[in-house]
Amino acid sequence: MEIAEELAKQQKAISVAEFFEKNRQILGFDSAPRAIITCVKEAVDNSLDACEEAGILPDVFVQIKRIGDYYKIIVEDNGPGIVAEEIPRVFAKMLYGSRFHTLRQSRGQQGIGISAAVLYAQLTSGKPARVTSKIGPDRPAINYELIINTAKNEPEILHEGESDWERPRGTRIELELEGTYVRSRRQSVFGYLKNVAVVNPHARITLVEPDGNIELFERATETAPRKAYAIQPHPAGTELGELIRLLRYTERKRLGVFLRETFSSIGPITTQEICKLANLGAERAPQSLTHEEAKRLLSTFKQIKVKSPPVDCLSPIGEGLIKTGLEKEFKLDFVATAIRPVSVFAGNPFLVEVGLGYGGELDKEGRADILRFANRVPLIYQQGACAITHAAENVPWKNYSCAQPPGNGLPTGPVVLMVHIASTNIPFTSESKDAIADLPEIITETELALKEVGRKLRRYLSRQSVLSERREKEEIIKKLLPRIADKLSEILGEDKPDITLVVAKIMGNLFVKRLYDQKDGFVSVKINLENHGEIIRSFKLHEVLSQEPYSVSLETKSMPIGDNYDCFWKISLKPGEGQQISYDVPSGTKFSETVIEGLESEVVTGARVI
Amino acid sequence: MEIAEELAKQQKAISVAEFFEKNRQILGFDSAPRAIITCVKEAVDNSLDACEEAGILPDVFVQIKRIGDYYKIIVEDNGPGIVAEEIPRVFAKMLYGSRFHTLRQSRGQQGIGISAAVLYAQLTSGKPARVTSKIGPDRPAINYELIINTAKNEPEILHEGESDWERPRGTRIELELEGTYVRSRRQSVFGYLKNVAVVNPHARITLVEPDGNIELFERATETAPRKAYAIQPHPAGTELGELIRLLRYTERKRLGVFLRETFSSIGPITTQEICKLANLGAERAPQSLTHEEAKRLLSTFKQIKVKSPPVDCLSPIGEGLIKTGLEKEFKLDFVATAIRPVSVFAGNPFLVEVGLGYGGELDKEGRADILRFANRVPLIYQQGACAITHAAENVPWKNYSCAQPPGNGLPTGPVVLMVHIASTNIPFTSESKDAIADLPEIITETELALKEVGRKLRRYLSRQSVLSERREKEEIIKKLLPRIADKLSEILGEDKPDITLVVAKIMGNLFVKRLYDQKDGFVSVKINLENHGEIIRSFKLHEVLSQEPYSVSLETKSMPIGDNYDCFWKISLKPGEGQQISYDVPSGTKFSETVIEGLESEVVTGARVI
Repeated sequence: MEIAEELAKQQKAISVAEFFEKNRQILGFDSAPRAIITCVKEAVDNSLDACEEAGILPDVFVQIKRIGDYYKIIVEDNGPGIVAEEIPRVFAKMLYGSRFHTLRQSRGQQGIGISAAVLYAQLTSGKPARVTSKIGPDRPAINYELIINTAKNEPEILHEGESDWERPRGTRIELELEGTYVRSRRQSVFGYLKNVAVVNPHARITLVEPDGNIELFERATETAPRKAYAIQPHPAGTELGELIRLLRYTERKRLGVFLRETFSSIGPITTQEICKLANLGAERAPQSLTHEEAKRLLSTFKQIKVKSPPVDCLSPIGEGLIKTGLEKEFKLDFVATAIRPVSVFAGNPFLVEVGLGYGGELDKEGRADILRFANRVPLIYQQGACAITHAAENVPWKNYSCAQPPGNGLPTGPVVLMVHIASTNIPFTSESKDAIADLPEIITETELALKEVGRKLRRYLSRQSVLSERREKEEIIKKLLPRIADKLSEILGEDKPDITLVVAKIMGNLFVKRLYDQKDGFVSVKINLENHGEIIRSFKLHEVLSQEPYSVSLETKSMPIGDNYDCFWKISLKPGEGQQISYDVPSGTKFSETVIEGLESEVVTGARVI
Repeated sequence: MEIAEELAKQQKAISVAEFFEKNRQILGFDSAPRAIITCVKEAVDNSLDACEEAGILPDVFVQIKRIGDYYKIIVEDNGPGIVAEEIPRVFAKMLYGSRFHTLRQSRGQQGIGISAAVLYAQLTSGKPARVTSKIGPDRPAINYELIINTAKNEPEILHEGESDWERPRGTRIELELEGTYVRSRRQSVFGYLKNVAVVNPHARITLVEPDGNIELFERATETAPRKAYAIQPHPAGTELGELIRLLRYTERKRLGVFLRETFSSIGPITTQEICKLANLGAERAPQSLTHEEAKRLLSTFKQIKVKSPPVDCLSPIGEGLIKTGLEKEFKLDFVATAIRPVSVFAGNPFLVEVGLGYGGELDKEGRADILRFANRVPLIYQQGACAITHAAENVPWKNYSCAQPPGNGLPTGPVVLMVHIASTNIPFTSESKDAIADLPEIITETELALKEVGRKLRRYLSRQSVLSERREKEEIIKKLLPRIADKLSEILGEDKPDITLVVAKIMGNLFVKRLYDQKDGFVSVKINLENHGEIIRSFKLHEVLSQEPYSVSLETKSMPIGDNYDCFWKISLKPGEGQQISYDVPSGTKFSETVIEGLESEVVTGARVI
């Protein structure tokens, strides 16, 4: 017998569940603390996806309990529920799901995550997963106890039943497993859920920790994020092999119809154009195209201008939320954000959003912190393996007034970065979804976004250094001038002059002075404004008064605040220009200090700046 | 209709080939340069594994050709071949192979790699893989053209035939694909194969590059590495869920037999002990055990001392090869190596071998370089994601006389590290097999091995600084003494003394002096040796002579080298001890300088040191 015949006896198919049983580290089960986090993450991601698809504001309950040598994890949601016949495969078959075959931004894409958690639980505790689900108020809750038959990658149902449940709809999963519960700022269930809450402010998440401590991440908005719609693949990202497969297995009878129905952004006119350019009849059977013809067809995709893929398959976080997210976690002096337009890698639309926070209580010496997100999911492991990190290391931070170690690398200093990649298909480096692969398109877009916030930071820092010089100058002037004024009035025997105007003139500031004239039963108020600077100054001037003013000189708006009135004027003054505001108020009216909004405090003399 | 019922329509099974079609970056196909490297890697790994299993010294031929827009990759070996009926599934079905279900060190473990290359080729060029294989001299070569039906993850045979082939046995695969061919030191086909050759010196590898350049990595030894034998799982690494599954599906009828046959390191006595301690009859049917009983059985595995797993499932590189490997790639002043004993993670035996190179032409300022290997395969991507890197970053290099950035990190300075992990199951972070997951056991063992070479480096460096002080001292003495000697001989009117002995005495060196006495037709040679140091000095003394010596005073060995004879003596001298060697040679014999081997040049006076 030949050696090869001996060796052939060992050849065998491997079930995907067996594969992951042996390689569970690929799924994010490489350590005891991480096992618990991964289980919670997979269940919560599923809950949020299901709620979003059904248009429900999510309310997710997470509990972790110590049970003997093991931990029990419970995750319950108010989502649409899962129909009884699908439950076993959704939870106990790997590579089964609803989101894989669809081009749309979603957290889960692979159809692996929750089954991986079930597998890990059964391997370590020997206990089945307990699933309860209810799809409508008039339906019973369905209960299952499930394990995965790893040799076959098929669910085994250990128990099946019905019960009452007070919820109208929802899903609950209970898993018992080996692990270690850790409480820390980032790599923990708490840290994970906190960051989930930041980028999913429409969700309410409750966490009950093993010691009984309850953390409630309350909903911050009643508005669900923009819904992501499913799209067809874009012709620009199609590869020859894929096109050949699509041609071969399509049910369409004619090439023209095939093109329109299979791809996004191809309408009847583009179809005609493509067929003509490729010299292929629109009536041809797609299955009849040769390798050469398919190649020709593909090259026309690249020649003609097909419009960009529709962007409604993506649901970005938005600049506002990124800013809020950063400010929620850190005390900062400055925040900049940037959103890149939608771009495409291998046919998948994606976009990059970034935020940069600076100063405040951030560590002045250490390496910059990065918060990474993909499709609204925080990435908390494998920072060093991620395209986001690599892009941030490529940026020449020294050009943006940041220190950077020799070669390249993350900037050092009081900087925190937040980067979100949204795509119909996040190219993770592994099934554990920790890190994004180094695709050139993603690295480039992320670099561009980071450079944009870098430029904003540089402007801020250079402005800061100008302002701090101004502050020093003004302090010196304010000390010196009164002494000179005192001396002068002494020598000349005159009254001491008001020096604030002089200071404003020297500093090139906006000068503000309020004058009162007590009349019979009322007070006439005048506010003089003079712009001594060399640029146009636009701002709002607020007066907070205990009574409503009348005979107001310029157009104003006034809003009651508590017992007071906030009156404000929008004003724009050219260099050297002055303006007077006047109004009357009844005698006895109380005044707060005049307030200027929209300018730096360093350039205003005679008023409070907010 | 409830929302869940709408959503249920989209639920669908995903074939593993579809999954990887969409997530090819997980398989190492994330960029055009890498695609070619990954294809070569998968094919070469398979060739080496097959040759090793069949006990054949591998001869692997790799050619890369430019064909229009695509590259053609050919990999051919002299391995055992593959039987005709297995070829389609081996090359065109993912999760199919002979090594997954076996506990033994091998390069391929997953049954994914080569099918992934076939998939990538068909996706990008639309062309099938061409496979030729022959299993014996009297058998025909079998030819296949194969693609993967991704929807089903099954091979589709486009062509099947027989042909002649001059090889007695072997396998050849041809793939056509999109990519970029890069030539560089590390991340390239050349760099990969060079490192493969370093740790597989029993293989001959030929590379023909697209420009026609031929690189031959010649075999450096005719000895195959130690063969790795398959073992059974070790009880210590077994988890409850796994034990329950094994009990449930075993064909054994009795618990005692089940234990002995299923696990390694469990003999009849241990079986009795386990059954007694767990209070379970050895005659019980394994299938009949309850969850509680299985738990009890498992806890006895941890209570009793089961002997360590057999180590013949592993095939380390060895300290010699690690040293050679480092010296082949770098000019170094110093190399240290360390091998850890076999350890276990989750039932998988593994061991760590490391090498550290220092000085020479390494960059004195940059970060240390790391060469990573897993089961004799070089890891060239994702360094930042790898447990090896993380372990190296954890080592407090400052304790070992190396610079290290604040916090922790790789040392900076002229340091190169080489780390090899051998295991029956390398826990990679993903199917692309770039990086090893952060398992605590692997990190700990790697750290221990690195600390060991770190200690050796520290000793070397501190010795170096002592030696450099000695050198300076000796240079001063050598300059001063002749002047003093000159002056003395002038004053005393005597001959100038030989000062080398004086230098040796002051420096505490080994003093070597060869004296000749020309006799009638022969020369009598005497070599005086004196150890003036404070420690025992053991060394070899070599004389290279053009004729064979006779009347040799001490036991010697002499070997002809070309036309000369290398005679050497093994000598050990206590502090203050002296020794004389004498021999005779015919007149006209040519002498080379006396050579000392095994001591630093700084402690020897009067001879050359190698």
